[in-house]
Amino acid sequence: MTDFILTLSCPNRPGIVAAVATALVSNGYDILEAQQFDDSETGHFFMRVLFKPAVEEAELAAFRAAMEGIAERFSMAFTLRDRSIRRRVMILVSKFDHCLADLLYRWRIGELPMEVTAIVSNHPREALSLPELNELPFHHLPVRPETKAEQEAALEELIAASDTELVVLARYMQVLSDGLAERLAGRCINIHHSFLPGFKGAKPYHQAHRRGVKLIGATAHFVTPDLDEGPIIEQDVERISHRNRPDDLVAKGRDIERRVLARALRYVLEDRVIVFGNKTVVFTD
Amino acid sequence: MTDFILTLSCPNRPGIVAAVATALVSNGYDILEAQQFDDSETGHFFMRVLFKPAVEEAELAAFRAAMEGIAERFSMAFTLRDRSIRRRVMILVSKFDHCLADLLYRWRIGELPMEVTAIVSNHPREALSLPELNELPFHHLPVRPETKAEQEAALEELIAASDTELVVLARYMQVLSDGLAERLAGRCINIHHSFLPGFKGAKPYHQAHRRGVKLIGATAHFVTPDLDEGPIIEQDVERISHRNRPDDLVAKGRDIERRVLARALRYVLEDRVIVFGNKTVVFTD
Amino acid sequence: MTDFILTLSCPNRPGIVAAVATALVSNGYDILEAQQFDDSETGHFFMRVLFKPAVEEAELAAFRAAMEGIAERFSMAFTLRDRSIRRRVMILVSKFDHCLADLLYRWRIGELPMEVTAIVSNHPREALSLPELNELPFHHLPVRPETKAEQEAALEELIAASDTELVVLARYMQVLSDGLAERLAGRCINIHHSFLPGFKGAKPYHQAHRRGVKLIGATAHFVTPDLDEGPIIEQDVERISHRNRPDDLVAKGRDIERRVLARALRYVLEDRVIVFGNKTVVFTD
Amino acid sequence: MTDFILTLSCPNRPGIVAAVATALVSNGYDILEAQQFDDSETGHFFMRVLFKPAVEEAELAAFRAAMEGIAERFSMAFTLRDRSIRRRVMILVSKFDHCLADLLYRWRIGELPMEVTAIVSNHPREALSLPELNELPFHHLPVRPETKAEQEAALEELIAASDTELVVLARYMQVLSDGLAERLAGRCINIHHSFLPGFKGAKPYHQAHRRGVKLIGATAHFVTPDLDEGPIIEQDVERISHRNRPDDLVAKGRDIERRVLARALRYVLEDRVIVFGNKTVVFTD
Repeated sequence: MTDFILTLSCPNRPGIVAAVATALVSNGYDILEAQQFDDSETGHFFMRVLFKPAVEEAELAAFRAAMEGIAERFSMAFTLRDRSIRRRVMILVSKFDHCLADLLYRWRIGELPMEVTAIVSNHPREALSLPELNELPFHHLPVRPETKAEQEAALEELIAASDTELVVLARYMQVLSDGLAERLAGRCINIHHSFLPGFKGAKPYHQAHRRGVKLIGATAHFVTPDLDEGPIIEQDVERISHRNRPDDLVAKGRDIERRVLARALRYVLEDRVIVFGNKTVVFTD
Repeated sequence: MTDFILTLSCPNRPGIVAAVATALVSNGYDILEAQQFDDSETGHFFMRVLFKPAVEEAELAAFRAAMEGIAERFSMAFTLRDRSIRRRVMILVSKFDHCLADLLYRWRIGELPMEVTAIVSNHPREALSLPELNELPFHHLPVRPETKAEQEAALEELIAASDTELVVLARYMQVLSDGLAERLAGRCINIHHSFLPGFKGAKPYHQAHRRGVKLIGATAHFVTPDLDEGPIIEQDVERISHRNRPDDLVAKGRDIERRVLARALRYVLEDRVIVFGNKTVVFTD
Repeated sequence: MTDFILTLSCPNRPGIVAAVATALVSNGYDILEAQQFDDSETGHFFMRVLFKPAVEEAELAAFRAAMEGIAERFSMAFTLRDRSIRRRVMILVSKFDHCLADLLYRWRIGELPMEVTAIVSNHPREALSLPELNELPFHHLPVRPETKAEQEAALEELIAASDTELVVLARYMQVLSDGLAERLAGRCINIHHSFLPGFKGAKPYHQAHRRGVKLIGATAHFVTPDLDEGPIIEQDVERISHRNRPDDLVAKGRDIERRVLARALRYVLEDRVIVFGNKTVVFTD
Repeated sequence: MTDFILTLSCPNRPGIVAAVATALVSNGYDILEAQQFDDSETGHFFMRVLFKPAVEEAELAAFRAAMEGIAERFSMAFTLRDRSIRRRVMILVSKFDHCLADLLYRWRIGELPMEVTAIVSNHPREALSLPELNELPFHHLPVRPETKAEQEAALEELIAASDTELVVLARYMQVLSDGLAERLAGRCINIHHSFLPGFKGAKPYHQAHRRGVKLIGATAHFVTPDLDEGPIIEQDVERISHRNRPDDLVAKGRDIERRVLARALRYVLEDRVIVFGNKTVVFTD
C-alpha cells in the first residue's frame, strides 16, 4: 500500500480542516502528517496532508470525488498525488555542472524521488566534468542570440516528447524567453547565485565582492518572465572574508548553490511548496 | 475576543483530527493555526491548535466538555489555555546575570508573555550588574551544602506563595535536589552552557577548550533528577577558533545561552512544547 | 604594563613585515598577535599587530619614531594605540532601544572596552523601556524637518564637548545630513535592519515580507553621505518562514541587529577594522 | 614562478617574526599572506606564511638554509612546501560513498590540490553508486576480524607502493589497529558522523535521535589510537526537528559530513593545519 499527498489552498473559512479530515476518515484513510497555514494578512488558507489507507477497501477515486465537492464548497484548489509515482524531471545545465553532479548523486542514492528524463545543455557533452552520463539521455542544444527561438522550440519539443513535468535550471546561464517562461509557469525552477534581491543579473559574486558584503548566498526560485523576481523557494548564505577574491566566492558559492537547489527540488518533489502570488508557502520537514 | 491554545497527545488512531476539528467548528470556533505530528516509531500522536471564536455565542466550557469526551475515547492528554492569561514565572539566577537581563528586557517590550513573580538568587542583590530590579520582588536565598534542604524549602514556599507556574534556572549554578527536581517536573527549565550531551557537568567551556572543538553551544532543557539529562527544548552553537581562550568562550557563550534560553522559554509560554518520555516535540513558528 | 595595537596599510612592497617586526624587537617589544592581508587585486597591504613590552626600558615614543620612518619609506598610514585607554563613545537611539540595552549590558560587564559619553535620543527619556540610565548623561534632542540643521548643530556640540571619538547609531532612525555624515567619516557606525544591499531605505522588514525571502538580516556599516552604501563591517542573517508576519520579522530582527551591532562595535573598539575605499578589512578573532 | 608555503611552531620568544621576515626578504622572497598565533596558555607560537619570489635569483635552497639556522636558534619545527607540487592522497571508503563522490568531484574541477593515488574499499567496486572510477586505481581489500592484520598489511603496502602521503577515511567504517593508527599519525584524517565529543562510537545518528538533540553534526579529525579522540580539524552542525526519524538524520548528516570532510582536507592540503598536542591550529581563509 502506498501513501498519498494532498495539498490545497482556498480563502479561509471555518470548517475546512473538519471537512477534509472527515472526508479522509470516512473514506478509510489515516492522516500521517499534516501542516496548515492560515495567512491572516490575505485571508488565504494552505494545507498539506500526507495520508495512507487505514482499511483495505479505501479507494482514492471515492476520496477524490469527496474532495471535489469540498473544493467547490470552499473555492479550493487542490492536488492529490500518489507518492510512489515519481515526477519526471529534465535538468538544464551549462558547463558549470556542480549542481548537476550533486542532483544526480542524490538521485542515484534515492534522496530525490524523481525520474530524470534528460540532461540538456547549450554546451557539448565533453564540456562537462562528469565522468559519464551514459545511462541518461543527453541533448546538446547550442544557442546564439539569433537562434534562440529555434533552440527554445527544440527544447519545448523535448519537454513534450519526454513527458517532462518539471524543468530544473541547474546553472543553465541562459535567460528563458518570456513566452517559454510563461508556458513553464509553476514547473520550472532556477538557482540564482546570489542572496536575492541583492545582486540580480550577471556576475553576482563579482558584484558582492565589489560591495564588500560579509556573507554570500544563493536563491532557488520559480522562473517567471520577470528575471530573478519569481517566487522564492529556498535561500542560504555563508560567511566570507576580505581575504576571499571573486574566484574564492565562486568556489564557496558552488557549495551554497548545490545545497539550496537540492533542498528546493526535494521540497517541490515532495509537494511541500504551494505558490501564492509572488510568494511560496513551504511546509518543511 | 481572545485566542485559545489546545495541545494534545495520544496513541495514534484514525479519526483524531476529524474529531477535534469537528468539535471546534460545531462549538463555534475557527482554527487559526494547527501543527500535528505522528511519531511512527512510538505510534504516538501530538497536536497543537490555535483557535478563536467564529461566532459570539462560542463557549469554551462547551468545547472543553466535548474535548473531555474525545480525550476519553482516544486515551488523550490535553491542555486548553486562554492565550490572554499570562503564565506566572519565577527566575533563579546566580551572579551571572546575562540571561536574566535578556529575559527581563524581552519581557518589558512584550516579547515574552509572562508575569514575573520574583527573582531569586543565592547571591545578594548587589552581586548583580543590573542597574535596578525595583519593580520586581527579589529574594536572596544563600545556600551552603549544610543548609541546602532549608534553602530549598524556603524556595518552594516562595513558589507556592507566589502562585508560580514555571521556574527558570537562568544560570542559577546550583543543582536542585532530586526531590525538588521531581516536584517541579515539567515546569522547571534550565540553560546548560554546552551543546549536550557533550561536556556535561562543571566548567563546560573549559572542557571544550581542552578538547579543541571548533563550535561551542548551549542547551535549554527541562530539569529532571538526572543532571543534564532532561528533555532538550532548544540548542544552538557558534563557531570558535584556536585564538579563543576559555574566557573568550565564556563571552561568546553568553550570547548563545541567552538566545537559546529566551527561545526555549517563549516556546514553553506559547504552548509549543510537548514532552514525551525523555524527548520533546516542539512546534516552532 | 599595558599592551598596544598597531594597524597599518600601504601599497604592497617587499620588506614591510621585516621592517615592522624588526622595529618592534629592536625597541624592546614582543608581538602577541599579528594578522596581515595582501590584497592582490588592489596591490594594497594591511596589518594589525598586538604587542607588549618585552623589557622594562621599552619606550613607545622610540617605537613611534621608528614607525614614522617606516611609514614614510612605504607611503604607509598607521595608528598606534594604548589598549588600556578606552575609546569615548556616544550612542544615538530612537524609541527602539533593544540595541542600546544590549550595548549597555555588554559595557557594564566589561565586554565592550569603551567610555560611554552620552545617550542621545530624538525621543524623551520616558519613551525608552530601560529602567534607568541614571549613571549616564541623557540628552533629548527632538528633530523635525525644519529644525534638523539646529538639532544636528546641537548634536555636534555635544560630540565636541564630550570628547566623543565614535558615534554609534543604535537604531537612531534619522538620516544624518550629508555635511554631518562627512564630518563624522570613519567614526560613525550604523545598524541597518536588512541584509544590504537588499532592502535599502525605510521599512526593510516589510519589504522582505512582501518579497517572500527565506532569511532576514542586519548590516552594521560606517555612515557615509550615500544612504545605506557605506563600508560594511559586519552582517548576519536568520531563517524565517511563511508563518512569520512583518511583526514577527521585526521581533526576530531585533536579535540579529543587536548581535551584529555589538560585534561591529567591538571590532572597531579593538582596532580590528581598516577601511579601504568602500570596503573594510576586518581582522576577526 | 611558483608560490611556497612555510609553516612553523616553536616556544614563543621575541624576534621570531623579525627573523623569518628578514630571512625571506634578504633571500629575495615576498610575503603574500601570513597568519600567526601566540598561544598565551602554552607559550607556544605558530605561523603560516605564503610567499613568492620577488626577484629572479631567489633560491629556495638558500632560504631553507637560513630557516634551518633560525629553527635551531628558536627550537622550531618547520615545513617548507612548493605549492605547485600536489600531495598524494589515498581515499578509503565503505559502501557509503557520498564523501568519496564529493571529494572526487571537487578534485576533478580543481578545488582540491591533490593527486589521488587510489580508492580502497572493504566492499567490491559494484557496491559503490558512482558510475565509474575508471581513471583511478581501485583496490578491494575485504576485512573480517580474523583477517584484519593481513588486510592492514596489504593496505600499508599499497600506501608505500603508491607514495601516498595522506590517507583519508571517507566513511571507511573500520577502526584502524593501534599500530596502523600510530604509523599514520599526522597523515590520516577521518570523518566521524557526530558532533564530537557527543555520540562517540557506533550509530551516532541513532544515539542522537534517542537523546532528542535539536542539532546534529560531523567532525573531521586526525586519526589516533584513541578512537574518536584525535585532534579535531573541522566541525559543523545542522538543525533537525522531532519530525526527523533516524533515516532522515542519516540523509541530513550526509550533507554535513561531506562538507566538513572536504573543508578539513582542503585545509590540510593547503598547509593550514598545525597539530599541537591533542589540538589543532587552523589558519582558515
